[in-house]
Amino acid sequence: MTQSNNDNKLKDPSVKRLFEGKNFVFISTLMKDGTPHLSPTWVDLEEQDGGHILVNTAIGRVKQKNVSRNSNVALAIYDQNNPYDMVSVRGRVVEQVSGDVAEKHIDKLAKKYMGLDKYPGRSAGEKRIILKIKPKKVFHMKYG
Amino acid sequence: MTQSNNDNKLKDPSVKRLFEGKNFVFISTLMKDGTPHLSPTWVDLEEQDGGHILVNTAIGRVKQKNVSRNSNVALAIYDQNNPYDMVSVRGRVVEQVSGDVAEKHIDKLAKKYMGLDKYPGRSAGEKRIILKIKPKKVFHMKYG
Repeated sequence: MTQSNNDNKLKDPSVKRLFEGKNFVFISTLMKDGTPHLSPTWVDLEEQDGGHILVNTAIGRVKQKNVSRNSNVALAIYDQNNPYDMVSVRGRVVEQVSGDVAEKHIDKLAKKYMGLDKYPGRSAGEKRIILKIKPKKVFHMKYG
Repeated sequence: MTQSNNDNKLKDPSVKRLFEGKNFVFISTLMKDGTPHLSPTWVDLEEQDGGHILVNTAIGRVKQKNVSRNSNVALAIYDQNNPYDMVSVRGRVVEQVSGDVAEKHIDKLAKKYMGLDKYPGRSAGEKRIILKIKPKKVFHMKYG
């Protein structure tokens, strides 16, 4: 097993490729009663200001309500072709961005994950929002 | 998307097959400061007493220390051949079992996941322990 948690690990090519691939991320947030909640989601990287992980959700979803109350999150991402190659992150949602930027961003993710120009999963009245996550600890685990 | 959270969902064949396959589970536990921690692990089901999820770890690992302090956990498991088929669970560690049972159980998991009779990853002095998880909410999500 390889494990490392040095700073700026998001820029490490072996970590970056997991976020750039069509891989899922699991995000753990905290419910009102302090218990953990886990949900799967698409993911994107933003390289400005030392690097952020971007998750796009809709306003009012469980994870968005959770991070609005308590910004601490944990994430895990694995290579869908090799689940023994994975990255685990602990960090904080430092910003939430809604509006046009968030609507365009979900289309960008639909392109990345589904090859579609427009995200096909919108419900009526849904407003998208980007959760901008600042990593504090990044662990890359590769077994075998 | 199919989503359901009825009781005894662990017995549902479409959920059970995810736990019975060679699929990873991600487990979220709570650090001392209340922030979430996520780690990947193998998994097993126990069908007695309404059904428990069994995770095998070593005494002293982060997740084992975390659940000893706060028993609330969240889990997610996905079909490694189709990440759009996944189950998310919220529950509690109701029991921890160490000793021979736990040592035999990690060998059982090595058989399931690696086809080996004996778990090859033991470190010197390592003591295995089973985290017995009682699900409270089980969500099966299947997209596409």
